[in-house]
Amino acid sequence: MAENSTYTIGLDFGSNSVRCLILDIASGRECAVAVWNYSAGRQGVLLDPENPHVARQSPADYLEGLQRTVIEALAMAREEVAGFSAENVIGIGVDTTGSTPLPVDDKLRPLAFQERFRDNLNAQAWMWKDHSAMAEAERITELAREMRPQYLAKCGGVYSSEWFFAKLWHCLQTDPEVFDAAFAWLEFADFIPATLAGIDNVENLRIGVCAAGHKAMFNREWGGYPDAEFLDRLDPKLGALRQRLPAQAWCAEERAGGLSAEWAERLGLADGIAVAVGAFDAHLGAVGAGIADGRMVKIIGTSTCDCLIAPNHEPLPDIPGVCGVVDGSIMKGYYTVEAGQSAVGDIFNWFVDYICQGDAEMFKELTEPAGRLRPGQSGLLGLDWHNGNRTILVDARLTGLMVGFNLHTTRAEIYRGLIESTAFGARRILDRIEESGVTVREVVNCGGIAEKNPLFMQIYADILGRPMKVSASSQTCALGSAIMGAVAAGSEAGGYARPEAAQAALCKYKKEAYRPLPEHRAVYDRLYRLYCQLHDSFGLAETSFDHSGLMKELLEIKGKG
Amino acid sequence: MAENSTYTIGLDFGSNSVRCLILDIASGRECAVAVWNYSAGRQGVLLDPENPHVARQSPADYLEGLQRTVIEALAMAREEVAGFSAENVIGIGVDTTGSTPLPVDDKLRPLAFQERFRDNLNAQAWMWKDHSAMAEAERITELAREMRPQYLAKCGGVYSSEWFFAKLWHCLQTDPEVFDAAFAWLEFADFIPATLAGIDNVENLRIGVCAAGHKAMFNREWGGYPDAEFLDRLDPKLGALRQRLPAQAWCAEERAGGLSAEWAERLGLADGIAVAVGAFDAHLGAVGAGIADGRMVKIIGTSTCDCLIAPNHEPLPDIPGVCGVVDGSIMKGYYTVEAGQSAVGDIFNWFVDYICQGDAEMFKELTEPAGRLRPGQSGLLGLDWHNGNRTILVDARLTGLMVGFNLHTTRAEIYRGLIESTAFGARRILDRIEESGVTVREVVNCGGIAEKNPLFMQIYADILGRPMKVSASSQTCALGSAIMGAVAAGSEAGGYARPEAAQAALCKYKKEAYRPLPEHRAVYDRLYRLYCQLHDSFGLAETSFDHSGLMKELLEIKGKG
Repeated sequence: MAENSTYTIGLDFGSNSVRCLILDIASGRECAVAVWNYSAGRQGVLLDPENPHVARQSPADYLEGLQRTVIEALAMAREEVAGFSAENVIGIGVDTTGSTPLPVDDKLRPLAFQERFRDNLNAQAWMWKDHSAMAEAERITELAREMRPQYLAKCGGVYSSEWFFAKLWHCLQTDPEVFDAAFAWLEFADFIPATLAGIDNVENLRIGVCAAGHKAMFNREWGGYPDAEFLDRLDPKLGALRQRLPAQAWCAEERAGGLSAEWAERLGLADGIAVAVGAFDAHLGAVGAGIADGRMVKIIGTSTCDCLIAPNHEPLPDIPGVCGVVDGSIMKGYYTVEAGQSAVGDIFNWFVDYICQGDAEMFKELTEPAGRLRPGQSGLLGLDWHNGNRTILVDARLTGLMVGFNLHTTRAEIYRGLIESTAFGARRILDRIEESGVTVREVVNCGGIAEKNPLFMQIYADILGRPMKVSASSQTCALGSAIMGAVAAGSEAGGYARPEAAQAALCKYKKEAYRPLPEHRAVYDRLYRLYCQLHDSFGLAETSFDHSGLMKELLEIKGKG
Repeated sequence: MAENSTYTIGLDFGSNSVRCLILDIASGRECAVAVWNYSAGRQGVLLDPENPHVARQSPADYLEGLQRTVIEALAMAREEVAGFSAENVIGIGVDTTGSTPLPVDDKLRPLAFQERFRDNLNAQAWMWKDHSAMAEAERITELAREMRPQYLAKCGGVYSSEWFFAKLWHCLQTDPEVFDAAFAWLEFADFIPATLAGIDNVENLRIGVCAAGHKAMFNREWGGYPDAEFLDRLDPKLGALRQRLPAQAWCAEERAGGLSAEWAERLGLADGIAVAVGAFDAHLGAVGAGIADGRMVKIIGTSTCDCLIAPNHEPLPDIPGVCGVVDGSIMKGYYTVEAGQSAVGDIFNWFVDYICQGDAEMFKELTEPAGRLRPGQSGLLGLDWHNGNRTILVDARLTGLMVGFNLHTTRAEIYRGLIESTAFGARRILDRIEESGVTVREVVNCGGIAEKNPLFMQIYADILGRPMKVSASSQTCALGSAIMGAVAAGSEAGGYARPEAAQAALCKYKKEAYRPLPEHRAVYDRLYRLYCQLHDSFGLAETSFDHSGLMKELLEIKGKG
């Protein structure tokens, strides 16, 4: 039966490795997965011993990883899947990290490939977690507040040092030779599809609305990128650059081009098959996890990323403190609402590693007694700001807090209190989003914690008051990319006309979903009110609270049997 | 040279044992110390398997311990001290725990010595930590608020279940047979001197103002114990009892009587030597540590007890939230101001035991890196309310809080943060007391932490802004009792006319004192303002605070090199 099957390739470029998935787009079978770790620098990251904020990557690594993993995955599929043929691969989807811009020449080739820039860190890809452009980001925020407040309203009110224009401007100021040599800058997510499709000019380039909209203030409302007047105020060279950047941006389900003959040969695929427009890993992960109107996708790792979509037939109001509201950046026809917590798994890791000084086994030791506690029984309540608050306060200069300690407070109680505090943080985000009219009926979760920590999941179900499902795929990003490859190929080619149809066929969930328990919800609703009191008191300027009843209420809840 | 020496005996009755010190009152030499552990119950405490709040002690244990330790200490002194003779012992001082009342017959003999009550827990001594009278204490507080607010003003605003009348009333309500059989009730601190002096009637009984004033609302201002009208409202039998209780109370430096022939023979001491009026262990510990106007004594253990005295030639205003202001309860001519924190050492023990799961060695492991931190470098700030707040909030229903965690916060930082939080708590108490006009120029510290933890002591010196001395004697309670024995004997008998003179000769300090470092003080002053903000916000009713700058200020202080 595999003889008639149709396949797409999902390419997922992470921070340290690239992964290639070959998906049977009728059955949803994940036929083959190949992974390659970047070879340059430290785990693929090029560091500057002089400056801890620098994090760059080699574009050569990206292309080598692309070629190696596709070839390997195809070989695996041939071996594993009866009747598999690379000829039946009809499309390729791509997700990457971001904002990870890289300077390119007028043929859209990385400057890093030129001999003179080969060893210049500034000519490489500026990785998402590069923070060297902090001063520029602050200045961009200031200027936008003054001149163009609408730019900030879409990205949570603060422009980040991790983002496109801050990085470009920092390069301009610190290494004008590189900046001047660059014809344009491409996001990693746009560079890969452009390369695969053999696109060598901006006119034919189809950039993704995902990277541009979330990180470069690109919006149709104001005609694409920030206007030249604004960019000129930063530096006239940025204003001039704008003319060499695309005027339009595309959704990830759209076709960036057809696979070039050169790359078709290199990879062993058919010439001309669809290459989808690129997007960020979290967003295509959301697609792979089955994101839909009313169904939020939460990617739970060291931090979290919450993705929602809402139909765009009515304009969505700006949501204060929510970092990204972009039309079409996950799926055409929907606004994306993106939020997230700066630390979740990282908080538990800190507690186990730094405070308990335990290893991974410690989680099991803590989970058992923590699971036996009633909601509220620990008497503890915390603020989950150990790494600041990304949403809804957008404030890195916040810290963790815990209240309710007595002389018998145990590690397990603190561990549970930490989980609860992150769940309350998640609910605060959800509440803010729902205030804007977006509805969340259920949550699909991805990531190691979702798969391995039932206590965490049940607490989240109880606190969020919604069913928590777990994606059946452990590689939702690559799956989402493969889905977009299938939609970009289109139904005539044996793909799908719409991502919704592809998701209905291809996104699956683990059987066990976590459902809110009414008796737990009632207690957590009460604790959540106290959490909000602390949240607003310590997080919002010019608010005053009377906390004199808080400890007593925690004790009362603790005491109830 | 010992041939001409003069000695007194200091008896210190603790919670689990009695200790007898023989002191050379000219040189201050501690000639002999004997200790005996009570034999009844569990470590001397009689428990009720049905009621965890019950904690009683056997009066027989008290007398057996008295006799054994005096005889043993005299034998040791004879052996160790050349020329020592029991004939040169001129006085005996006594301190005990309290409030620890016991029912007695009309000859002031314990009911527990009667065959019919021998095994009745209610006929024994009701130990200070017995909490069976919680309901009665609440009712007493209510009634006093309504009828006699002045009663509460001297004891911090709340009458405790640990105190005299709550316990008597509980006995009356739950075991009227015992209550009715009791002619009177004596505090442990009064029972021992009365026994030694052979006093068998209330007319000759000299009770201490210490127990009566701090625990039984006894005050000359209103004619001694609470008036009969008030006690009648609790129960007419309590009003009737009042007539059988002494009308006057005495200071610990005064003579309760002369040693009876019977006890002189039993102990091997001279008939008729001075027996001082009894007082609480913490108060005579303060005497032994050299308490004086301007010199606070802090006993640092699992919890703390802060003692101050202020000359009584002008009336001292009531100090809100300070638990005991009594004229003469430490020394004649001075008001006592008593305060304390519900948990200090207990908080560190909790952290090491429950959270770090370490043993006593762990303190050393934590102290070294904690000591290398600058003030404020941890970024942490805490409220030290893990066991409630005794002074100045007088509120058991409070809990511990800590703010300022990040993903790199270490155990050592938390440990230092906990020490600092208790020091800020201590400063808040000190500030409140100083607002009433009492001055504190230096602090003398007793207890294991003061002797063994230089980091703790330096942090306290920096935060309290005063020199922190350490008492040279490790048994300041027994030393204080021996001093009072010497004053009760009087100068004619070779003793002292005044406690101040005895202290000048007999109280010594360790050479190393901890002095505030100006650069530390400046940072801690800043952190203390933030502590007060949290303290008042979480501790005081109907106050509102804007905490939005708090985390940022902690981060700013943390960041300063």
